Amino acid sequence: MEVKNLFANLSQVKGSEEFLTLFENANVKIERIVSHSSPSPAGFWYDQDDDEWVMVLRGTATTEFADGEKVELHEGDCLTIPHHVKHRVARTSEETIWLAVHVK
Amino acid sequence: MEVKNLFANLSQVKGSEEFLTLFENANVKIERIVSHSSPSPAGFWYDQDDDEWVMVLRGTATTEFADGEKVELHEGDCLTIPHHVKHRVARTSEETIWLAVHVK
Repeated sequence: MEVKNLFANLSQVKGSEEFLTLFENANVKIERIVSHSSPSPAGFWYDQDDDEWVMVLRGTATTEFADGEKVELHEGDCLTIPHHVKHRVARTSEETIWLAVHVK
Repeated sequence: MEVKNLFANLSQVKGSEEFLTLFENANVKIERIVSHSSPSPAGFWYDQDDDEWVMVLRGTATTEFADGEKVELHEGDCLTIPHHVKHRVARTSEETIWLAVHVK
């Protein structure tokens, strides 16, 4: 059995986002996302075909929705973003580690 | 948007296991499991139809497989347990918080 640690082998590049796929099949993709003070580009909105369940493992972030709602996330916070609910990352801390589960 | 914190509202009963469903549809169930020094019953093996991706959010645990392999898990460790790979929880710490994604 192969064990991975989600807090190991973190990228260190400020302003970057790093994606690591942990599990994937036809129905689901689980990934770790490491953000370094890396908001989404101004005016960019995610508009996804899949539902996304997301959790902050470390750090903090602010997620912004197209209806104007802003949601502040701290360590341990999780959220379901239904498909085609437009959203963006307004802010992350210096090192924010996300766990994201994309569900068909 | 409803935010839940995975480290809030933890059960405190020693020897217990508590399950909280965080997301569920036809393909996937995501749950938090809180274990308090609660191994699987002696001789009991999980034998699941679904693949399971599991991570330790807090605490430690030992997972045991029917082929004799034992895997020690610490905070941040994750593991994919394919369907019908028989396994049990040999040991948990006083408070072990798991995140489990069951995938059809």
